[in-house]
Amino acid sequence: MIRYDHPVKVYYKDVDQMGIVYYSRYFEFFEEARTEMLLSFGLDYVKVEDNGAMLPVIEAHCEYKKGAKFGQEIIVKTCIRELPKVKMKFEYIICPADSDEILMKGYTVHACTNLEGKPIKMPKYIRNILQDKMDN
Amino acid sequence: MIRYDHPVKVYYKDVDQMGIVYYSRYFEFFEEARTEMLLSFGLDYVKVEDNGAMLPVIEAHCEYKKGAKFGQEIIVKTCIRELPKVKMKFEYIICPADSDEILMKGYTVHACTNLEGKPIKMPKYIRNILQDKMDN
Amino acid sequence: MIRYDHPVKVYYKDVDQMGIVYYSRYFEFFEEARTEMLLSFGLDYVKVEDNGAMLPVIEAHCEYKKGAKFGQEIIVKTCIRELPKVKMKFEYIICPADSDEILMKGYTVHACTNLEGKPIKMPKYIRNILQDKMDN
Amino acid sequence: MIRYDHPVKVYYKDVDQMGIVYYSRYFEFFEEARTEMLLSFGLDYVKVEDNGAMLPVIEAHCEYKKGAKFGQEIIVKTCIRELPKVKMKFEYIICPADSDEILMKGYTVHACTNLEGKPIKMPKYIRNILQDKMDN
Repeated sequence: MIRYDHPVKVYYKDVDQMGIVYYSRYFEFFEEARTEMLLSFGLDYVKVEDNGAMLPVIEAHCEYKKGAKFGQEIIVKTCIRELPKVKMKFEYIICPADSDEILMKGYTVHACTNLEGKPIKMPKYIRNILQDKMDN
Repeated sequence: MIRYDHPVKVYYKDVDQMGIVYYSRYFEFFEEARTEMLLSFGLDYVKVEDNGAMLPVIEAHCEYKKGAKFGQEIIVKTCIRELPKVKMKFEYIICPADSDEILMKGYTVHACTNLEGKPIKMPKYIRNILQDKMDN
Repeated sequence: MIRYDHPVKVYYKDVDQMGIVYYSRYFEFFEEARTEMLLSFGLDYVKVEDNGAMLPVIEAHCEYKKGAKFGQEIIVKTCIRELPKVKMKFEYIICPADSDEILMKGYTVHACTNLEGKPIKMPKYIRNILQDKMDN
Repeated sequence: MIRYDHPVKVYYKDVDQMGIVYYSRYFEFFEEARTEMLLSFGLDYVKVEDNGAMLPVIEAHCEYKKGAKFGQEIIVKTCIRELPKVKMKFEYIICPADSDEILMKGYTVHACTNLEGKPIKMPKYIRNILQDKMDN
Protein backbone atom coordinates (compact mmCIF):
# COMPACT_ATOMS: atom_id res chain seq x y z
CA MET A 1 0.00 0.00 0.00
CA ILE A 2 1.24 3.48 -0.89
CA ARG A 3 0.24 6.47 1.21
CA TYR A 4 0.51 10.21 0.79
CA ASP A 5 -0.74 13.15 2.85
CA HIS A 6 -1.69 16.39 1.09
CA PRO A 7 -2.69 19.51 3.07
CA VAL A 8 -5.46 21.76 1.76
CA LYS A 9 -6.78 24.99 3.21
CA VAL A 10 -10.43 25.91 2.80
CA TYR A 11 -11.20 29.36 1.39
CA TYR A 12 -14.37 31.35 0.75
CA LYS A 13 -14.48 30.06 -2.83
CA ASP A 14 -15.09 26.54 -1.48
CA VAL A 15 -17.83 27.22 1.03
CA ASP A 16 -21.57 27.39 0.38
CA GLN A 17 -24.35 29.10 2.30
CA MET A 18 -24.57 26.21 4.81
CA GLY A 19 -21.11 27.43 5.86
CA ILE A 20 -19.39 24.22 4.77
CA VAL A 21 -17.43 23.17 1.70
CA TYR A 22 -19.75 22.58 -1.29
CA TYR A 23 -19.91 18.85 -1.99
CA SER A 24 -18.27 18.82 -5.41
CA ARG A 25 -15.22 20.78 -4.23
CA TYR A 26 -13.82 17.76 -2.38
CA PHE A 27 -13.29 16.11 -5.77
CA GLU A 28 -10.98 19.00 -6.64
CA PHE A 29 -9.11 18.39 -3.39
CA PHE A 30 -8.87 14.70 -4.33
CA GLU A 31 -7.34 15.69 -7.67
CA GLU A 32 -4.73 17.88 -5.99
CA ALA A 33 -3.90 15.07 -3.59
CA ARG A 34 -3.44 12.32 -6.22
CA THR A 35 -1.46 14.65 -8.50
CA GLU A 36 0.94 15.47 -5.66
CA MET A 37 1.11 11.82 -4.62
CA LEU A 38 2.18 10.73 -8.10
CA LEU A 39 4.63 13.63 -8.33
CA SER A 40 6.14 12.68 -4.96
CA PHE A 41 7.47 9.49 -6.49
CA GLY A 42 8.50 10.99 -9.77
CA LEU A 43 5.32 10.61 -11.81
CA ASP A 44 4.69 14.09 -13.13
CA TYR A 45 1.21 14.03 -14.70
CA VAL A 46 2.32 16.72 -17.16
CA LYS A 47 4.88 14.23 -18.47
CA VAL A 48 2.40 11.34 -18.40
CA GLU A 49 0.34 13.33 -20.93
CA ASP A 50 3.45 14.38 -22.86
CA ASN A 51 4.24 10.67 -23.13
CA GLY A 52 0.86 10.03 -24.71
CA ALA A 53 -1.26 8.69 -21.84
CA MET A 54 -4.14 10.13 -19.86
CA LEU A 55 -5.74 8.85 -16.65
CA PRO A 56 -9.37 10.01 -16.91
CA VAL A 57 -11.69 9.41 -13.96
CA ILE A 58 -14.22 6.67 -14.67
CA GLU A 59 -15.73 6.48 -11.21
CA ALA A 60 -15.84 8.92 -8.29
CA HIS A 61 -17.34 8.48 -4.87
CA CYS A 62 -17.54 10.45 -1.65
CA GLU A 63 -19.19 9.94 1.74
CA TYR A 64 -19.58 13.07 3.81
CA LYS A 65 -19.45 12.81 7.59
CA LYS A 66 -18.81 16.40 8.60
CA GLY A 67 -18.27 19.49 6.50
CA ALA A 68 -15.00 21.40 6.46
CA LYS A 69 -15.30 25.13 7.17
CA PHE A 70 -13.81 28.36 5.87
CA GLY A 71 -10.28 28.82 7.18
CA GLN A 72 -9.93 25.18 8.20
CA GLU A 73 -6.77 23.26 7.39
CA ILE A 74 -7.44 19.72 6.33
CA ILE A 75 -5.34 16.77 5.21
CA VAL A 76 -6.28 14.60 2.23
CA LYS A 77 -4.82 11.18 3.07
CA THR A 78 -4.51 9.25 -0.17
CA CYS A 79 -3.66 5.62 -0.70
CA ILE A 80 -3.23 3.12 -3.51
CA ARG A 81 -3.84 -0.43 -2.30
CA GLU A 82 -3.22 -2.42 -5.44
CA LEU A 83 -0.92 -2.22 -8.40
CA PRO A 84 -3.04 -1.09 -11.35
CA LYS A 85 -3.47 -3.39 -14.32
CA VAL A 86 -5.99 -1.53 -16.42
CA LYS A 87 -7.64 0.62 -13.79
CA MET A 88 -6.04 2.64 -11.05
CA LYS A 89 -7.84 3.29 -7.77
CA PHE A 90 -7.05 6.05 -5.30
CA GLU A 91 -8.73 6.10 -1.89
CA TYR A 92 -9.01 9.28 0.14
CA ILE A 93 -9.75 10.18 3.74
CA ILE A 94 -10.02 13.80 4.78
CA CYS A 95 -9.19 14.77 8.38
CA PRO A 96 -8.67 18.11 10.11
CA ALA A 97 -4.95 18.99 10.21
CA ASP A 98 -4.99 18.71 14.00
CA SER A 99 -6.99 15.52 14.63
CA ASP A 100 -7.79 12.07 13.27
CA GLU A 101 -11.53 12.70 13.01
CA ILE A 102 -12.70 11.54 9.58
CA LEU A 103 -14.57 14.34 7.84
CA MET A 104 -15.13 12.36 4.70
CA LYS A 105 -13.85 9.50 2.64
CA GLY A 106 -14.00 8.69 -1.00
CA TYR A 107 -12.28 7.14 -3.96
CA THR A 108 -11.67 7.67 -7.64
CA VAL A 109 -11.05 5.02 -10.28
CA HIS A 110 -9.06 5.93 -13.38
CA ALA A 111 -8.74 4.30 -16.78
CA CYS A 112 -5.68 4.69 -18.92
CA THR A 113 -6.22 6.05 -22.42
CA ASN A 114 -4.19 7.51 -25.26
CA LEU A 115 -4.59 11.21 -26.06
CA GLU A 116 -7.58 10.41 -28.30
CA GLY A 117 -9.34 8.80 -25.35
CA LYS A 118 -8.91 5.17 -26.52
CA PRO A 119 -8.25 2.74 -23.64
CA ILE A 120 -4.68 1.47 -23.48
CA LYS A 121 -2.69 -0.63 -21.03
CA MET A 122 -1.13 1.21 -18.13
CA PRO A 123 2.32 2.24 -19.45
CA LYS A 124 5.13 0.07 -18.10
CA TYR A 125 7.10 2.95 -16.57
CA ILE A 126 4.05 3.88 -14.49
CA ARG A 127 3.59 0.29 -13.34
CA ASN A 128 7.28 0.00 -12.53
CA ILE A 129 7.34 3.12 -10.42
CA LEU A 130 4.24 2.03 -8.53
CA GLN A 131 5.59 -1.52 -8.10
CA ASP A 132 8.74 -0.07 -6.68
CA LYS A 133 6.81 2.02 -4.16
CA MET A 134 4.58 -0.94 -3.23
CA ASP A 135 7.64 -3.03 -2.42
CA ASN A 136 9.07 -0.39 -0.08
CA MET B 1 -40.96 6.39 -9.14
CA ILE B 2 -40.70 10.11 -9.86
CA ARG B 3 -38.81 11.34 -12.91
CA TYR B 4 -37.62 14.72 -14.09
CA ASP B 5 -35.51 15.85 -17.07
CA HIS B 6 -33.28 18.89 -16.74
CA PRO B 7 -31.35 20.29 -19.72
CA VAL B 8 -27.83 21.65 -19.23
CA LYS B 9 -25.52 23.22 -21.76
CA VAL B 10 -21.77 22.79 -21.47
CA TYR B 11 -19.64 25.94 -21.53
CA TYR B 12 -15.91 26.64 -21.52
CA LYS B 13 -16.00 27.02 -17.73
CA ASP B 14 -16.88 23.32 -17.45
CA VAL B 15 -14.31 21.82 -19.77
CA ASP B 16 -10.73 20.81 -18.93
CA GLN B 17 -7.70 20.39 -21.14
CA MET B 18 -8.80 16.89 -22.21
CA GLY B 19 -11.63 18.78 -23.96
CA ILE B 20 -14.32 17.20 -21.79
CA VAL B 21 -16.27 18.33 -18.74
CA TYR B 22 -14.09 18.20 -15.59
CA TYR B 23 -15.29 15.32 -13.42
CA SER B 24 -16.52 17.34 -10.44
CA ARG B 25 -18.70 19.63 -12.57
CA TYR B 26 -21.28 16.89 -13.12
CA PHE B 27 -22.11 17.11 -9.41
CA GLU B 28 -23.06 20.74 -10.00
CA PHE B 29 -25.31 19.61 -12.87
CA PHE B 30 -26.84 17.03 -10.51
CA GLU B 31 -27.57 19.80 -8.01
CA GLU B 32 -29.31 21.91 -10.66
CA ALA B 33 -31.35 18.89 -11.73
CA ARG B 34 -32.58 17.87 -8.28
CA THR B 35 -33.33 21.49 -7.34
CA GLU B 36 -35.48 21.91 -10.45
CA MET B 37 -37.11 18.52 -9.91
CA LEU B 38 -38.20 19.44 -6.39
CA LEU B 39 -39.34 22.87 -7.59
CA SER B 40 -41.38 21.27 -10.37
CA PHE B 41 -43.70 19.75 -7.81
CA GLY B 42 -43.79 22.72 -5.52
CA LEU B 43 -40.83 22.04 -3.25
CA ASP B 44 -38.82 25.24 -3.41
CA TYR B 45 -35.51 24.54 -1.67
CA VAL B 46 -35.30 28.20 -0.64
CA LYS B 47 -38.48 27.63 1.36
CA VAL B 48 -37.30 24.28 2.70
CA GLU B 49 -34.44 26.19 4.36
CA ASP B 50 -36.75 29.03 5.41
CA ASN B 51 -38.86 26.35 7.11
CA GLY B 52 -35.85 25.21 9.09
CA ALA B 53 -34.65 22.12 7.22
CA MET B 54 -31.61 21.40 5.06
CA LEU B 55 -30.88 18.42 2.82
CA PRO B 56 -27.07 18.13 2.89
CA VAL B 57 -25.42 15.54 0.67
CA ILE B 58 -24.06 12.60 2.65
CA GLU B 59 -23.03 10.45 -0.30
CA ALA B 60 -22.25 11.22 -3.93
CA HIS B 61 -21.32 8.88 -6.73
CA CYS B 62 -20.68 9.11 -10.44
CA GLU B 63 -19.63 6.68 -13.18
CA TYR B 64 -18.25 8.29 -16.30
CA LYS B 65 -18.81 6.55 -19.64
CA LYS B 66 -18.13 9.35 -22.08
CA GLY B 67 -17.28 12.98 -21.48
CA ALA B 68 -19.58 15.82 -22.52
CA LYS B 69 -17.96 18.49 -24.68
CA PHE B 70 -18.00 22.27 -24.96
CA GLY B 71 -21.19 23.44 -26.65
CA GLN B 72 -22.97 20.14 -26.10
CA GLU B 73 -26.54 20.09 -24.84
CA ILE B 74 -27.17 17.33 -22.34
CA ILE B 75 -30.12 16.13 -20.29
CA VAL B 76 -29.82 15.22 -16.64
CA LYS B 77 -32.53 12.58 -16.10
CA THR B 78 -33.27 12.43 -12.40
CA CYS B 79 -35.38 9.95 -10.51
CA ILE B 80 -36.48 9.21 -6.96
CA ARG B 81 -37.37 5.54 -6.54
CA GLU B 82 -38.41 5.42 -2.91
CA LEU B 83 -40.21 7.66 -0.50
CA PRO B 84 -37.57 9.00 1.87
CA LYS B 85 -37.80 8.17 5.56
CA VAL B 86 -34.61 9.63 6.93
CA LYS B 87 -32.50 9.71 3.80
CA MET B 88 -33.43 10.85 0.32
CA LYS B 89 -31.80 9.37 -2.76
CA PHE B 90 -31.69 10.92 -6.20
CA GLU B 91 -30.42 8.93 -9.17
CA TYR B 92 -29.13 10.63 -12.31
CA ILE B 93 -28.41 9.61 -15.87
CA ILE B 94 -26.89 12.08 -18.30
CA CYS B 95 -27.60 11.72 -22.02
CA PRO B 96 -26.98 13.97 -25.03
CA ALA B 97 -30.06 16.07 -25.79
CA ASP B 98 -30.47 14.25 -29.10
CA SER B 99 -29.88 10.60 -28.19
CA ASP B 100 -30.33 8.00 -25.46
CA GLU B 101 -26.64 7.21 -25.17
CA ILE B 102 -25.70 7.22 -21.49
CA LEU B 103 -22.75 9.56 -20.91
CA MET B 104 -22.71 8.99 -17.20
CA LYS B 105 -24.80 7.96 -14.26
CA GLY B 106 -24.65 8.73 -10.61
CA TYR B 107 -26.56 9.32 -7.43
CA THR B 108 -26.63 11.50 -4.36
CA VAL B 109 -27.98 10.63 -0.92
CA HIS B 110 -29.20 13.41 1.35
CA ALA B 111 -29.82 13.57 5.06
CA CYS B 112 -32.33 15.93 6.59
CA THR B 113 -31.03 18.30 9.25
CA ASN B 114 -32.10 21.44 11.05
CA LEU B 115 -30.27 24.69 10.30
CA GLU B 116 -27.63 23.83 12.92
CA GLY B 117 -26.86 20.59 11.06
CA LYS B 118 -28.53 18.23 13.58
CA PRO B 119 -30.31 15.29 11.91
CA ILE B 120 -34.08 15.52 11.97
CA LYS B 121 -36.91 13.49 10.45
CA MET B 122 -37.88 14.43 6.91
CA PRO B 123 -40.58 17.13 7.41
CA LYS B 124 -44.08 15.84 6.85
CA TYR B 125 -44.95 18.34 4.10
CA ILE B 126 -41.97 17.10 2.08
CA ARG B 127 -43.00 13.47 2.56
CA ASN B 128 -46.59 14.29 1.64
CA ILE B 129 -45.64 16.03 -1.58
CA LEU B 130 -43.35 13.17 -2.59
CA GLN B 131 -45.97 10.57 -1.60
CA ASP B 132 -48.45 12.39 -3.77
CA LYS B 133 -46.11 12.34 -6.76
CA MET B 134 -45.26 8.66 -6.19
CA ASP B 135 -48.93 7.75 -6.33
CA ASN B 136 -49.43 9.49 -9.66
CA MET C 1 -24.89 48.30 -30.94
CA ILE C 2 -25.79 44.63 -30.60
CA ARG C 3 -27.74 43.40 -27.58
CA TYR C 4 -28.58 40.00 -26.18
CA ASP C 5 -30.33 38.85 -22.99
CA HIS C 6 -29.31 35.56 -21.38
CA PRO C 7 -31.17 34.17 -18.35
CA VAL C 8 -29.25 32.42 -15.59
CA LYS C 9 -30.56 30.78 -12.46
CA VAL C 10 -28.51 30.81 -9.28
CA TYR C 11 -27.90 27.46 -7.57
CA TYR C 12 -26.21 26.37 -4.35
CA LYS C 13 -22.97 25.76 -6.24
CA ASP C 14 -22.75 29.52 -6.92
CA VAL C 15 -23.44 30.89 -3.46
CA ASP C 16 -20.91 31.46 -0.66
CA GLN C 17 -21.41 31.70 3.08
CA MET C 18 -22.49 35.35 2.84
CA GLY C 19 -25.55 33.88 1.08
CA ILE C 20 -24.73 35.60 -2.22
CA VAL C 21 -23.07 34.48 -5.45
CA TYR C 22 -19.28 34.20 -5.01
CA TYR C 23 -17.62 37.04 -6.92
CA SER C 24 -15.80 34.98 -9.55
CA ARG C 25 -18.93 33.08 -10.60
CA TYR C 26 -20.33 36.09 -12.43
CA PHE C 27 -17.48 35.72 -14.92
CA GLU C 28 -18.83 32.26 -15.71
CA PHE C 29 -22.27 33.79 -16.25
CA PHE C 30 -20.64 36.37 -18.55
CA GLU C 31 -19.09 33.54 -20.57
CA GLU C 32 -22.44 31.78 -20.95
CA ALA C 33 -24.02 35.06 -22.06
CA ARG C 34 -21.44 35.98 -24.70
CA THR C 35 -21.35 32.41 -26.04
CA GLU C 36 -25.13 32.41 -26.46
CA MET C 37 -25.05 35.91 -27.95
CA LEU C 38 -22.57 34.88 -30.64
CA LEU C 39 -24.52 31.68 -31.28
CA SER C 40 -27.75 33.66 -31.66
CA PHE C 41 -26.41 35.24 -34.80
CA GLY C 42 -24.76 32.15 -36.15
CA LEU C 43 -21.30 32.36 -34.59
CA ASP C 44 -20.86 28.99 -32.94
CA TYR C 45 -17.71 29.24 -30.80
CA VAL C 46 -17.10 25.52 -31.34
CA LYS C 47 -16.76 26.29 -35.06
CA VAL C 48 -14.68 29.41 -34.44
CA GLU C 49 -12.10 27.11 -32.82
CA ASP C 50 -12.54 24.47 -35.53
CA ASN C 51 -11.75 27.23 -38.02
CA GLY C 52 -8.49 27.94 -36.24
CA ALA C 53 -9.24 30.98 -34.10
CA MET C 54 -9.66 31.52 -30.38
CA LEU C 55 -10.96 34.55 -28.49
CA PRO C 56 -9.11 34.46 -25.16
CA VAL C 57 -10.02 36.99 -22.50
CA ILE C 58 -7.33 39.64 -22.06
CA GLU C 59 -9.20 41.86 -19.64
CA ALA C 60 -12.12 41.24 -17.27
CA HIS C 61 -13.90 43.64 -14.99
CA CYS C 62 -16.89 43.57 -12.68
CA GLU C 63 -18.54 46.05 -10.32
CA TYR C 64 -20.83 44.52 -7.72
CA LYS C 65 -23.83 46.50 -6.52
CA LYS C 66 -25.95 43.80 -4.94
CA GLY C 67 -25.41 40.08 -4.70
CA ALA C 68 -27.69 37.56 -6.39
CA LYS C 69 -29.11 34.86 -4.12
CA PHE C 70 -29.77 31.14 -4.27
CA GLY C 71 -32.85 30.41 -6.35
CA GLN C 72 -32.86 33.85 -7.96
CA GLU C 73 -33.41 34.19 -11.70
CA ILE C 74 -31.22 36.85 -13.25
CA ILE C 75 -30.67 38.21 -16.75
CA VAL C 76 -27.23 38.86 -18.16
CA LYS C 77 -27.75 41.72 -20.62
CA THR C 78 -24.83 41.71 -23.02
CA CYS C 79 -23.87 44.27 -25.61
CA ILE C 80 -21.19 44.91 -28.22
CA ARG C 81 -20.86 48.61 -28.96
CA GLU C 82 -18.15 48.61 -31.57
CA LEU C 83 -17.09 46.41 -34.44
CA PRO C 84 -13.91 44.64 -33.34
CA LYS C 85 -10.69 45.27 -35.23
CA VAL C 86 -8.17 43.41 -33.16
CA LYS C 87 -9.95 43.31 -29.83
CA MET C 88 -13.55 42.50 -29.07
CA LYS C 89 -15.35 43.99 -26.10
CA PHE C 90 -18.49 42.65 -24.47
CA GLU C 91 -20.29 44.68 -21.82
CA TYR C 92 -22.63 43.07 -19.32
CA ILE C 93 -25.32 44.23 -16.93
CA ILE C 94 -27.00 41.76 -14.60
CA CYS C 95 -30.56 42.43 -13.43
CA PRO C 96 -33.12 40.31 -11.61
CA ALA C 97 -35.47 38.61 -14.09
CA ASP C 98 -38.37 40.66 -12.76
CA SER C 99 -36.91 44.16 -12.45
CA ASP C 100 -34.45 46.63 -13.97
CA GLU C 101 -32.39 47.00 -10.80
CA ILE C 102 -28.72 46.67 -11.73
CA LEU C 103 -27.10 44.01 -9.56
CA MET C 104 -23.76 44.32 -11.27
CA LYS C 105 -22.05 45.40 -14.42
CA GLY C 106 -18.84 44.38 -16.07
CA TYR C 107 -17.01 43.80 -19.28
CA THR C 108 -14.57 41.45 -20.93
CA VAL C 109 -12.08 42.23 -23.69
CA HIS C 110 -10.96 39.46 -26.02
CA ALA C 111 -8.00 39.12 -28.32
CA CYS C 112 -8.07 36.94 -31.39
CA THR C 113 -5.37 34.28 -31.65
CA ASN C 114 -4.62 31.17 -33.64
CA LEU C 115 -4.76 27.80 -31.88
CA GLU C 116 -1.15 28.22 -30.73
CA GLY C 117 -2.09 31.46 -28.99
CA LYS C 118 -0.41 33.81 -31.48
CA PRO C 119 -2.39 37.03 -32.07
CA ILE C 120 -4.12 37.18 -35.45
CA LYS C 121 -6.55 39.58 -37.08
CA MET C 122 -10.20 38.99 -36.34
CA PRO C 123 -11.32 36.55 -39.10
CA LYS C 124 -13.31 38.25 -41.82
CA TYR C 125 -16.39 36.02 -41.45
CA ILE C 126 -16.64 37.05 -37.80
CA ARG C 127 -16.32 40.73 -38.69
CA ASN C 128 -18.88 40.36 -41.46
CA ILE C 129 -21.45 38.74 -39.22
CA LEU C 130 -20.97 41.40 -36.55
CA GLN C 131 -21.06 44.19 -39.16
CA ASP C 132 -24.30 42.79 -40.43
CA LYS C 133 -25.83 42.78 -36.95
CA MET C 134 -24.55 46.31 -36.24
CA ASP C 135 -26.27 47.59 -39.34
CA ASN C 136 -29.62 46.11 -38.34
CA MET D 1 2.88 49.81 1.10
CA ILE D 2 2.31 46.29 2.39
CA ARG D 3 3.38 43.29 0.33
CA TYR D 4 2.74 39.59 0.53
CA ASP D 5 3.66 36.66 -1.72
CA HIS D 6 1.34 33.65 -1.91
CA PRO D 7 2.27 30.53 -3.92
CA VAL D 8 -0.41 28.66 -5.87
CA LYS D 9 -0.09 25.52 -7.92
CA VAL D 10 -2.24 25.00 -10.99
CA TYR D 11 -4.20 21.75 -11.20
CA TYR D 12 -6.43 20.14 -13.82
CA LYS D 13 -9.51 21.65 -12.14
CA ASP D 14 -8.24 25.13 -13.09
CA VAL D 15 -7.38 24.57 -16.74
CA ASP D 16 -9.70 24.85 -19.73
CA GLN D 17 -9.49 23.33 -23.17
CA MET D 18 -7.08 26.04 -24.36
CA GLY D 19 -4.67 24.41 -21.89
CA ILE D 20 -4.50 27.50 -19.68
CA VAL D 21 -6.18 28.52 -16.44
CA TYR D 22 -9.82 29.54 -17.04
CA TYR D 23 -10.12 33.30 -16.62
CA SER D 24 -12.36 33.36 -13.55
CA ARG D 25 -10.11 31.05 -11.56
CA TYR D 26 -7.52 33.77 -11.01
CA PHE D 27 -10.06 35.57 -8.84
CA GLU D 28 -10.06 32.51 -6.58
CA PHE D 29 -6.27 32.71 -6.44
CA PHE D 30 -6.60 36.41 -5.55
CA GLU D 31 -8.92 35.48 -2.69
CA GLU D 32 -6.46 32.92 -1.33
CA ALA D 33 -3.67 35.49 -1.55
CA ARG D 34 -5.48 38.32 0.25
CA THR D 35 -6.79 35.94 2.94
CA GLU D 36 -3.28 34.71 3.65
CA MET D 37 -1.89 38.25 3.54
CA LEU D 38 -4.35 39.43 6.19
CA LEU D 39 -3.69 36.31 8.26
CA SER D 40 0.07 36.90 8.05
CA PHE D 41 -0.32 40.01 10.15
CA GLY D 42 -2.88 38.62 12.51
CA LEU D 43 -6.11 39.47 10.71
CA ASP D 44 -7.94 36.16 10.56
CA TYR D 45 -10.94 36.68 8.26
CA VAL D 46 -12.86 34.03 10.24
CA LYS D 47 -12.57 36.33 13.27
CA VAL D 48 -13.36 39.45 11.25
CA GLU D 49 -16.76 37.85 10.51
CA ASP D 50 -17.11 36.61 14.09
CA ASN D 51 -16.58 40.23 15.14
CA GLY D 52 -19.48 41.30 12.94
CA ALA D 53 -17.80 42.67 9.83
CA MET D 54 -17.54 41.42 6.25
CA LEU D 55 -15.35 42.66 3.40
CA PRO D 56 -17.38 41.89 0.26
CA VAL D 57 -15.82 42.55 -3.13
CA ILE D 58 -17.34 45.59 -4.85
CA GLU D 59 -14.97 45.71 -7.81
CA ALA D 60 -12.72 43.14 -9.43
CA HIS D 61 -10.37 43.50 -12.35
CA CYS D 62 -7.84 41.37 -14.17
CA GLU D 63 -5.58 41.84 -17.19
CA TYR D 64 -4.28 38.63 -18.72
CA LYS D 65 -0.86 38.64 -20.36
CA LYS D 66 -0.06 34.96 -20.49
CA GLY D 67 -1.97 31.97 -19.22
CA ALA D 68 -0.68 29.73 -16.46
CA LYS D 69 -0.59 26.01 -17.28
CA PHE D 70 -1.37 22.74 -15.56
CA GLY D 71 1.38 21.84 -13.11
CA GLN D 72 2.82 25.34 -13.06
CA GLU D 73 3.77 26.96 -9.78
CA ILE D 74 2.89 30.63 -9.64
CA ILE D 75 3.20 33.40 -7.07
CA VAL D 76 0.38 35.82 -6.37
CA LYS D 77 2.15 39.02 -5.28
CA THR D 78 -0.34 41.11 -3.35
CA CYS D 79 -0.02 44.65 -2.13
CA ILE D 80 -2.05 47.27 -0.27
CA ARG D 81 -0.88 50.77 -1.14
CA GLU D 82 -3.15 52.88 1.01
CA LEU D 83 -4.70 52.63 4.42
CA PRO D 84 -8.40 51.90 3.87
CA LYS D 85 -10.95 54.42 5.07
CA VAL D 86 -14.18 52.99 3.74
CA LYS D 87 -12.87 50.85 0.90
CA MET D 88 -9.92 48.50 0.87
CA LYS D 89 -7.96 47.84 -2.31
CA PHE D 90 -5.70 44.88 -2.96
CA GLU D 91 -3.50 44.79 -6.05
CA TYR D 92 -2.17 41.54 -7.45
CA ILE D 93 0.54 40.50 -9.86
CA ILE D 94 0.95 36.85 -10.82
CA CYS D 95 4.39 35.58 -11.85
CA PRO D 96 5.82 32.11 -12.41
CA ALA D 97 7.54 30.83 -9.25
CA ASP D 98 10.89 30.89 -11.05
CA SER D 99 10.83 34.22 -12.91
CA ASP D 100 9.62 37.81 -12.76
CA GLU D 101 7.59 37.59 -15.95
CA ILE D 102 4.18 39.09 -15.30
CA LEU D 103 1.47 36.59 -16.29
CA MET D 104 -1.34 38.83 -15.19
CA LYS D 105 -2.25 41.67 -12.91
CA GLY D 106 -5.44 42.71 -11.26
CA TYR D 107 -7.07 44.25 -8.26
CA THR D 108 -10.08 43.89 -6.00
CA VAL D 109 -11.83 46.61 -4.04
CA HIS D 110 -13.73 45.71 -0.88
CA ALA D 111 -16.38 47.50 1.12
CA CYS D 112 -16.87 46.91 4.80
CA THR D 113 -20.34 45.85 5.90
CA ASN D 114 -22.04 44.37 8.93
CA LEU D 115 -23.33 40.78 8.74
CA GLU D 116 -26.60 42.02 7.21
CA GLY D 117 -24.66 43.62 4.37
CA LYS D 118 -25.11 47.26 5.53
CA PRO D 119 -22.02 49.42 4.91
CA ILE D 120 -20.08 50.29 8.03
CA LYS D 121 -16.77 52.04 8.74
CA MET D 122 -13.69 49.86 8.62
CA PRO D 123 -13.36 48.55 12.23
CA LYS D 124 -10.65 50.34 14.18
CA TYR D 125 -8.69 47.16 15.02
CA ILE D 126 -8.37 46.43 11.29
CA ARG D 127 -7.19 49.98 10.57
CA ASN D 128 -4.73 49.82 13.45
CA ILE D 129 -3.18 46.58 12.30
CA LEU D 130 -2.84 47.88 8.75
CA GLN D 131 -1.49 51.24 9.96
CA ASP D 132 1.08 49.37 11.96
CA LYS D 133 2.19 47.34 8.93
CA MET D 134 2.28 50.47 6.73
CA ASP D 135 4.65 52.15 9.17
CA ASN D 136 7.07 49.23 9.14
